[in-house]
Amino acid sequence: MAVDKPARKAAELLTALRAQRPLIHNITNQVVMNYTANALLASGASPVMAHAQEEVEEMTALAGALVLNIGTLTASSVEAMLLAGRQANALNIPVILDPVGSGATRFRTRTAVRLLGELSVSVIRGNASEILSLARADTRTRGVDAVHGVDEVRETALQLAHTLGTVLAITGAVDLITDGKQTLTVSNGHEMMGYITGTGCTATALIGAFSAVEKDPLHAASSALAYFGLAGEMGARDAPGPGTFQMALLDALFVMDEKQLKAGARIEA
Amino acid sequence: MAVDKPARKAAELLTALRAQRPLIHNITNQVVMNYTANALLASGASPVMAHAQEEVEEMTALAGALVLNIGTLTASSVEAMLLAGRQANALNIPVILDPVGSGATRFRTRTAVRLLGELSVSVIRGNASEILSLARADTRTRGVDAVHGVDEVRETALQLAHTLGTVLAITGAVDLITDGKQTLTVSNGHEMMGYITGTGCTATALIGAFSAVEKDPLHAASSALAYFGLAGEMGARDAPGPGTFQMALLDALFVMDEKQLKAGARIEA
Amino acid sequence: MAVDKPARKAAELLTALRAQRPLIHNITNQVVMNYTANALLASGASPVMAHAQEEVEEMTALAGALVLNIGTLTASSVEAMLLAGRQANALNIPVILDPVGSGATRFRTRTAVRLLGELSVSVIRGNASEILSLARADTRTRGVDAVHGVDEVRETALQLAHTLGTVLAITGAVDLITDGKQTLTVSNGHEMMGYITGTGCTATALIGAFSAVEKDPLHAASSALAYFGLAGEMGARDAPGPGTFQMALLDALFVMDEKQLKAGARIEA
Repeated sequence: MAVDKPARKAAELLTALRAQRPLIHNITNQVVMNYTANALLASGASPVMAHAQEEVEEMTALAGALVLNIGTLTASSVEAMLLAGRQANALNIPVILDPVGSGATRFRTRTAVRLLGELSVSVIRGNASEILSLARADTRTRGVDAVHGVDEVRETALQLAHTLGTVLAITGAVDLITDGKQTLTVSNGHEMMGYITGTGCTATALIGAFSAVEKDPLHAASSALAYFGLAGEMGARDAPGPGTFQMALLDALFVMDEKQLKAGARIEA
Repeated sequence: MAVDKPARKAAELLTALRAQRPLIHNITNQVVMNYTANALLASGASPVMAHAQEEVEEMTALAGALVLNIGTLTASSVEAMLLAGRQANALNIPVILDPVGSGATRFRTRTAVRLLGELSVSVIRGNASEILSLARADTRTRGVDAVHGVDEVRETALQLAHTLGTVLAITGAVDLITDGKQTLTVSNGHEMMGYITGTGCTATALIGAFSAVEKDPLHAASSALAYFGLAGEMGARDAPGPGTFQMALLDALFVMDEKQLKAGARIEA
Repeated sequence: MAVDKPARKAAELLTALRAQRPLIHNITNQVVMNYTANALLASGASPVMAHAQEEVEEMTALAGALVLNIGTLTASSVEAMLLAGRQANALNIPVILDPVGSGATRFRTRTAVRLLGELSVSVIRGNASEILSLARADTRTRGVDAVHGVDEVRETALQLAHTLGTVLAITGAVDLITDGKQTLTVSNGHEMMGYITGTGCTATALIGAFSAVEKDPLHAASSALAYFGLAGEMGARDAPGPGTFQMALLDALFVMDEKQLKAGARIEA
């Protein structure tokens, strides 16, 4: 059945990830550094965080993917992102961008747009408001929270993906992943994921991990989101609240096997 | 009964917090960023962390409260705190200050005093030594730990609150909250809270959340401390140690309902 | 029995640590700050994190040990490490160094070598590749992961410890601790420790805590590693995955008593 194909793909990529243990270089925000590092480890990848301009190019050169996240950006970290991003582009290492809070302040919107202008980015992962802010300067994001639904931005997203030549992964109740031509949806996930910080950032980091073992960014992104969303469903089963859930989600990333992912992934064209 | 009034108030504020989901802008330390963001989410608020001078004013303008915490201060983050604080003052957004480690180094004491000199602060939350250091230059804090008891500083606190025109929330075995005229105590809490990092900082962040839905800082602070302390009591019930407790505390912030808070809050005049 | 001696020593130091609650000053990386602070608290120590050049000397002067960790180093944090380190040396406060990722970038290797050149360091804790990079400029580390085994570097380590006049603690499946003359091994630990971020950094921080209560760095380091490894074994008993394990490890640091440590520590000459 056609519907099974992306789920089978997701399972294959998880196998590849655990076998290859790619190094993922993250220049990310201070709020989620620990959690995303742990999520990458639980999934089978090997995280490294490094943001000094003196070293980011060398660190990126060792990596299977580069994840850029502007959640607690500074002028200096933006320069580091550009250095690392250019190095990644030169070496054909995929670059994943999380424009956290783009639309909330001009500094964030401008930085996200600048990174997209100067770098070739493989996948952009954000909520609907963040993604919309990349296309329309008048979009407002409420801190790091979406005020738009995924459905509202579908058309804009398709056009933006086409213009930028990148894959957009817009996460929400149902995730939408598009390269401007093909569009997939992922309907895994659990509402509890909205009650812990950094689930968006962690989704982005996992897209980085899957991008290190899969050339097609559409499949890398949809597979990572299905895997993460399913782990959220598994983790929420016995969690009374977001504290326990936070750790159960890491457990689920670790214990989930390929069979469970193949059976549970809800990726649709 | 008069004793019930502050407890009923606390319960009402929790309802308001969950209904309004205010955005809380934190310029805080790197140790506790993740935990305080998760505590704010678990309580019903929406946290954002941003400290670049380029954007703090815009971010504060979106927020219901601004939380300043000097736990890992730098010259640059202090400037960001001043920019954000002035913006908050201009827009009548409450500013909550946590003078972490004031009294341990001159840089911390000086910074805390400077922030209080240049900004109008709604609530200061600290341990007894930190609060004392704001009044007496010769006070020593042991790192971020109090060497004084809450009782020792009661008189100084009343005077300081009066002089500064601010509410002081001094946390310890029994918390003391005063605006210089009225004084409340909160006797919720559990000793296990001393074995995880950032409980003080989290208390401060929650005072920010409650301040976003309550104009009277005395009630905002005492309600937040009772809510947090009670969550500590609930979280400690089945926790064998501080790791499990850390997560159980977040769970308790999330699952506690208004009835439980009203019944369990121990706020006294 | 001779074999019991180091285990008894470890138990005695744990008692001393919990009785004295030494302040441990950490200038460390942003990924692990929260976890290492919590591990130090769970063990009985009192952590403080401070990295501003304006204050590190004063903070170090209050501390029982100084822990330097280059995991997310910047030019500015390296200067702070030097200031703090010189202060520690002047006051005979032990300095513990974790050269995270040394060998992965020239900035890291150079910084580690510079810190060792300018400071008198009591214990260096790293994986085999990181330690090797301090001796041989051509060593490559894969991000923060070892590509060498502990056995491979034994000879180099002995010589390096002798040359530097410091204790090396090389952690792996079996840890090797040497001052160039005496060598101990610690075979506590659990493979799950490799699936959470910052276990190496936490081991280093705990060596700092034990160094605050024990003058001989060989015993401080081996005792801390046995304590931490045994906590890992205890924590892994009922943990389905690395999320739960992370917290169970903190619980174990807290609940472990001296008798358990004495019985479980596997330290050998």
